[in-house]
Parts: sequence; C-alpha cells; structure tokens
Amino acid sequence: MNYADRLAAAVDDKGSPCVIGLDPHLSRLPAEFRAAHDPDASRAEVAADVERFLFEVIDAVADLVPAVKPQSAFFEALGADGARVWERVVVRAHKAGLLVIGDVKRGDIGSTAEAYARAFLSGGPGADPDTLCDAITVNPYLGSDSIDPFLKACRDKGAGLYVLVRTSNPSSRELQALGDPPLMEKVAELVDGWGRELVGTCGLSAVGAVIGATHPSELRSLRAKLPHSPLLIPGYGAQGGGAGDVAGGFLHGLEGALVNSSRGVLYAERRGEEGWKDACRRAAREMRAALRGVLLGGEGA
Amino acid sequence: MNYADRLAAAVDDKGSPCVIGLDPHLSRLPAEFRAAHDPDASRAEVAADVERFLFEVIDAVADLVPAVKPQSAFFEALGADGARVWERVVVRAHKAGLLVIGDVKRGDIGSTAEAYARAFLSGGPGADPDTLCDAITVNPYLGSDSIDPFLKACRDKGAGLYVLVRTSNPSSRELQALGDPPLMEKVAELVDGWGRELVGTCGLSAVGAVIGATHPSELRSLRAKLPHSPLLIPGYGAQGGGAGDVAGGFLHGLEGALVNSSRGVLYAERRGEEGWKDACRRAAREMRAALRGVLLGGEGA
Repeated sequence: MNYADRLAAAVDDKGSPCVIGLDPHLSRLPAEFRAAHDPDASRAEVAADVERFLFEVIDAVADLVPAVKPQSAFFEALGADGARVWERVVVRAHKAGLLVIGDVKRGDIGSTAEAYARAFLSGGPGADPDTLCDAITVNPYLGSDSIDPFLKACRDKGAGLYVLVRTSNPSSRELQALGDPPLMEKVAELVDGWGRELVGTCGLSAVGAVIGATHPSELRSLRAKLPHSPLLIPGYGAQGGGAGDVAGGFLHGLEGALVNSSRGVLYAERRGEEGWKDACRRAAREMRAALRGVLLGGEGA
Repeated sequence: MNYADRLAAAVDDKGSPCVIGLDPHLSRLPAEFRAAHDPDASRAEVAADVERFLFEVIDAVADLVPAVKPQSAFFEALGADGARVWERVVVRAHKAGLLVIGDVKRGDIGSTAEAYARAFLSGGPGADPDTLCDAITVNPYLGSDSIDPFLKACRDKGAGLYVLVRTSNPSSRELQALGDPPLMEKVAELVDGWGRELVGTCGLSAVGAVIGATHPSELRSLRAKLPHSPLLIPGYGAQGGGAGDVAGGFLHGLEGALVNSSRGVLYAERRGEEGWKDACRRAAREMRAALRGVLLGGEGA
C-alpha cells in the first residue's frame, strides 16, 4: 500500500498530524535513568537506559500521534549497542501501532544508496521486517541517481521518503537559499518530479519534503510548488516554530503535513507533582490540540 | 596532532596516496564466503563473513596504502550485527597501522551533528577510542552550523573531515553544477573557510573536500580554490577515472590528495591461478604504481 495512503489513514485514525522525534539526548533523560547520567557506566548500560526511556515514551504518546521519528545520530553515538536499540525501538513503535520515520538523512551514489535502502526500507539479508522504517529522510545533494534506489523501495515496498528541501537550522540559508531562483526551489522541482509516479489514492505521493517550521513564508511558497508531496515540518516547539507557523504546509484540515516535536515533548517541563511521563503525554496532547485548533478551527480542540 | 600532518606522514611512509574503499557488496564476495551468498543464512552469519573478508583485505593491502575507507551503508544493511563488524573493522585497520576514513556522508542540524561527531570522531559514553575514525565524509547541504561540531572534533581530537563538493556520480551535476558560479564553487569557498583555522605544519588543513575523479577539469579548478584542503578523490577504476584524471588534484608529488578505489581492488579479476587475495593485492600495487608514475615521473614506479 502506498505510503501516502497509509499515512493519511494513520493521521485520520489518531486525529493528529503530530510526530514525536525520538532524540535521546543523554543529559536530558529523567534522573531515574541513572546509567545515562553516569560517566562510568558501560555503553551497554547506557543503551539499556535509552531503550527503556524510549519504550516508555512510545507507550505515553502512542494514542495521540500517527508516527514517531527516531533520530539515528543519537543511536549511532552508542555504537553497535545503539544500533540494537534502534531496531528494538522501531519494533516497539510498530507494535504500538505507529508509523516509523527514520531520520537518517542519508545520501550517496547509486550502488551505496541501494545498500542504505536495504538498511532502512527494503531489508537486507536476514532482516526482520519489523525493524524496517515506513519512511526515511534523505539528502538531495547528490541528485537523482542517489534517490532512485529509495524510489524503488517506495514502489516495491510501500515505503516513503522525505527529501531535505529547506531545513530548520539557522545556517540552512547558506546553500539552500543560494541563487535566483534559490536552490531549495530547484530541489522542490526535483522532489515533485520524483514523486509523480508514486501518487496514492489520497492524491498525495510517497515522496515528501522536509521544510522547517522556522521559515513560515517559504513553507507556504514551497508547498505551492509541491502539490502532491506530504511535508515533514521540523522546528516546532524547542526550535521556535508555533502552530500558526506550520499552517501553510497543510492542504486541507489535517492533511498534507506532519509536524515534528522532539525535545519539547520528550523533555517537557513538569508541572507540580507531575511525573516525566505525564509531562511528556501532556505536551503531546497540547501540541495536538494547538494544531487541531489552527487547522480545524472551531471543531478542533 | 593535526589530521593533515598525520595523513602526510602516512602517505610519506607508504609512498602511496591510495585509499582502499571497504564496500562489502555481498554478491561480489569470493565464493569461499558462503553465508554471504546464501539467502537462508542468518544476519549474524553474513556479518561474520563480511568481517572475515574485510580482515583479510586489510591484511592484504596494509603495507601498500596509508588508509582505508569503510562505507557505512554496507554495514548498516546488516543492522546491529553490521554495526558491530564496523567497529571491529576499524579496530583491525588501526592495528594494521592504517588511518580510517569513515565514509558516512552525515549532515544534520547542530545538536544532532554533535551526536554524529561523538559517534565517529570524538567518542560517546563508554566508547573504545580504537573504534573511532581518523576522518569522515560529511554533506554540506545544511550549512555551517551542521559542520561546527565536526570542526570541534578536528580541533580537540585531531580528527579530519572531507566535505562533499563534487561527487563522482552522473547526477551530481543536477545540484552541484547549478547556478553561475555553480553551487560546488560556493561549497568550496565554505570548505576553504572552515579549514583556515585547522592548517597543520605540513601546510594543509584537517578540513578536506571530496571531488570525483570523473570530473578532471573541475578537479583542477576546484583544487585552485582549495589551496589548503586535502582532497579525497573517489571514482578511480570501476567508476571510470584513471591516473591521469586525478593528477590535477595533487599539489606536489604525492601530496595533497588521496585517490580511492573500492570495487577495482576488493573484487579485482583474478589472473591464471591467482587467489582472490593475491588479485586484490596486485590491483592495489598496480594502482599505487600508476599513480606514482604520473605524480613522480621517472622516479615513480
């Protein structure tokens, strides 16, 4: 089944266009995860803490969001132990009924991109299909032949892609806004072309784009150039974007975009006697309500 | 010690500017690695074959080259088992006296790039320092703040970077050659700026650039814009570049660039009764001689 259709069904089911980024910053984990804060802990002990934390996060938000987005870097920083936790977190999220968007931002020449497609979307030898992602983020700097193997996984496996177009960080303008028309518009054109053959019955394609919440006016103009692309909008919350800033990325109601929050939900400030998991769940619920309010108006919250 | 100085010493010691890319394409492994060719083999069995193959490759080429370049994608395609093999291959290469350039092409926003820097260059909690790379490849699409954490690892840990400027694949022109002046020249300017503070006693910086052997004229003009950057030149051999095509990337003698061959060495065609390891060693020796011939003239081979 086309990724865009699976995504649309999941958004509809949860009544939410939110995705929670699973970014396990060790120093921010709640104090009960002692190995994460202990400089003498072994890597395996730290990895076990990260796994336990993320399992609890998944359980806390599973009924509020259609998807989670694990960030590969934080797992890779724990070496092979972290790679094992990545697999187990993906399995756990799937068991909880969530789509998994692997935030890996890979990009390489064709034969290498094929190996990345196997790693995350289509499965290498002996791979457990439950450890694969539903979609991943990819980097467009190497051009079409670096994207082709991922498009094949979209066609053959119902996978999805989010191509970096305009990222949420301050320096993104250095290259992405360069030229007239700016580079990001050329990338958007390519993304639109790559996705043409992969439009599902919902009218959207399996090939989407990453556009940061921190650039609301560009989000609106790029959305117009990407009529069939689902958007993934990072930068909500901790990075400064609010519900009003992301509205331009949506097409109709809750359709057309996913908004990501990582730190703002995982490490939400506790109120009063609230435990960390309650704070996390409350932050996810508030984000969902804020977006529904803006996108659905009166019928929203 | 500055990466550029460590690299210069290693090139001088081996009399060779060659790097062997460790790209374990399963279908190309010699027949004796049975699990790699067996669709029913477990992931752990396949990973064990890949490890044994790469250990033997490292032993076969260690006295002929200053560095190896493992390609992360092929390890990631084997999941957590592959991540373990990656660590063991890096350790083995270091024990064999080789520098390790991790071909990972990462690029992400600042806080995430910090985690990638820990993963590959500076070490996360409980990391064995022998599992870290001497240098990695990175993608510039997100701009300066995505590179800063890697520059810190260069300053603090003597690590090196190779930023993608002009890649060897056919579609690289789609974005990299876009605009006037083309995007790759702007990226080269940024790379030159990032490397200014990291010039070693050899006159080169810890911050280098990736420029494909498949674009000889651009290699020459980009080299002029990057007077202090060591280059990493992929695309030699299987991708079509020859010794004459890469000469423009060098500064003086064997200095200023590393030329990579992956498939052309790892899966070299056997001659007569030659075993696979002998073919691999012969291909590495021929590549070394061809480059010395072009770069050193009469005194070369």
